[in-house]
Amino acid sequence: MMAGALAVSLGDPAGVGPELLAEAWSRRSEERLPPFFAVGGAGLLVRAAEQRGLRLPIAPIAEPAEAVDAFARALPVLGEADADYRPGEPDRDGAAFALGSLRDAARLAVAGEAGGLVTGPIAKALLAAVGFAHPGQTEFVAEACGVAAQDAVMMLAGPALKTVPLTVHVALAAVPALLTAGLIVRRATIVAGALQRDFGIARPRLAIAALNPHAGEDGRFGDEEARIIAPAVATLVAQGIAATGPHPADALFAAHAREGYDVALCMYHDQALIPLKALDFDNGVNVTLGLPIIRTSPDHGTAFGIAGKRLASAGATIAAIRMAGDCAARRRHA
Amino acid sequence: MMAGALAVSLGDPAGVGPELLAEAWSRRSEERLPPFFAVGGAGLLVRAAEQRGLRLPIAPIAEPAEAVDAFARALPVLGEADADYRPGEPDRDGAAFALGSLRDAARLAVAGEAGGLVTGPIAKALLAAVGFAHPGQTEFVAEACGVAAQDAVMMLAGPALKTVPLTVHVALAAVPALLTAGLIVRRATIVAGALQRDFGIARPRLAIAALNPHAGEDGRFGDEEARIIAPAVATLVAQGIAATGPHPADALFAAHAREGYDVALCMYHDQALIPLKALDFDNGVNVTLGLPIIRTSPDHGTAFGIAGKRLASAGATIAAIRMAGDCAARRRHA
Repeated sequence: MMAGALAVSLGDPAGVGPELLAEAWSRRSEERLPPFFAVGGAGLLVRAAEQRGLRLPIAPIAEPAEAVDAFARALPVLGEADADYRPGEPDRDGAAFALGSLRDAARLAVAGEAGGLVTGPIAKALLAAVGFAHPGQTEFVAEACGVAAQDAVMMLAGPALKTVPLTVHVALAAVPALLTAGLIVRRATIVAGALQRDFGIARPRLAIAALNPHAGEDGRFGDEEARIIAPAVATLVAQGIAATGPHPADALFAAHAREGYDVALCMYHDQALIPLKALDFDNGVNVTLGLPIIRTSPDHGTAFGIAGKRLASAGATIAAIRMAGDCAARRRHA
Repeated sequence: MMAGALAVSLGDPAGVGPELLAEAWSRRSEERLPPFFAVGGAGLLVRAAEQRGLRLPIAPIAEPAEAVDAFARALPVLGEADADYRPGEPDRDGAAFALGSLRDAARLAVAGEAGGLVTGPIAKALLAAVGFAHPGQTEFVAEACGVAAQDAVMMLAGPALKTVPLTVHVALAAVPALLTAGLIVRRATIVAGALQRDFGIARPRLAIAALNPHAGEDGRFGDEEARIIAPAVATLVAQGIAATGPHPADALFAAHAREGYDVALCMYHDQALIPLKALDFDNGVNVTLGLPIIRTSPDHGTAFGIAGKRLASAGATIAAIRMAGDCAARRRHA
């Protein structure tokens, strides 16, 4: 199958998404990035690039297949949709543009016209005001793929560490009741399959974190390890998956411990995100596992406060594009 | 007041404590360590040193005041108590020796005969079997000082980060109910005072972490930020303490965020320990704030599995001794 260029949604036009996409294209050679195209926003991109001190040539394209050839000389942009550039001043028109860009980019990836999907940062509250009914882009993309939201697994990937939070945007007090052995087994199975298929890891090693400090010290404080996590690990091992744990979470992200696994499955949001951001804030990629398409995103928000100020790092955007290209290439050659 | 040498308790004789203390003494010049003496264990230390490939001269001393002069040529050891060296094979006799060493070392520090206290790693379950009734060494030392356990504040300090866990060895599910504004204010006040007095920070900046992901996103998941943490921060600010927060915990330990504070107050054990160990596993120091004496400890356990195998790093032991010496010097010169 011919390699399709990656479709990139712009994200909120008042955020850092457009300027970082412009910078990623300008560094395409030195960063060895695969071909990608923006879904809408030709004028927005040019103005965001100017504000960042970059000259950005645009190649309007009529269909995704034209992107690969155009990419070397200009940033290919598909479609007429555009938005004003007012960095740091989000509004409804901008949110509507961001939603359209996301919707069109996802459609092209699902249809196989794009080689994968990279999504720019959105503001969820603003998007909700223009009709976006999903908790986040991950759930939106899952639905576009016909995959149940609970089977679309978010993995955060940095140069030093990959983590999967098993619960995400819930109060910490609500976490223990949400954990079940079934949840852990189901998500871990999806993760193991995706690391094989998309990341080229023949036998992925999954470290399953404990919930309680010191993994509960044999039940002295908390029984979720014995009641939920250890049985899940046993089930996974019986299925032939290289799962270990429950591991005390405090030591799990130390340098020598990280050598022992390919991904850490974490019980709650901050358990997964604290070590990732502590070790490498600027290059984290959010990748959705378990989908028929490749989908990545820079692991940061719109950063309205620094948009247009030449302060935002393009590291995560570049890493997200490169990872999507690498994963797509592995699927093509599988 | 004359500088007293630091009293060091041996920890469990089957653990890594004795070999690391021997190595710390052998590196006293290059590491510029302040004078210290071991409380018991002369034979144990010599055998642990041999096993590690070190020749360790011992200077038996009759009272702490002799330690400073002896330190340059030999490791001063106070008292006749000793233990067999069987690395990796803890037993009751060893636990009883560890408890005696801790008790005597604490007594000397409280009496002002030692300049401070550095405690070696113990095995709590074994110590409990020989009559140790405290949850940990911190509580034991607090009682020896006549300080209520809840006013002895554990701080973990590495080269990149200092954190204080406000709850420690409890199930994660129990954490939210244990948090009160009063607890945060009381501990933060102790921390601010100790950073001024013992660490020489004129106006300590305290970052107070949120409990819930994204600090609860304005109450969408969890209300502890609005109900407990924000009022505590307001009270601290009104008292003239440079406290900020509640900060979303995932971003709080990123490199650029760490520049904004001197210590992070964390709501639970792993929130404080994950970033510390991820950033620097081998050099963490556990220091007790709010006591009339200086007390530090290497932030690791007995590590029975690697004792006697020349694998354990002396980094944390050396850092704990240096920190105790630095803090003691600041108190003397205050």
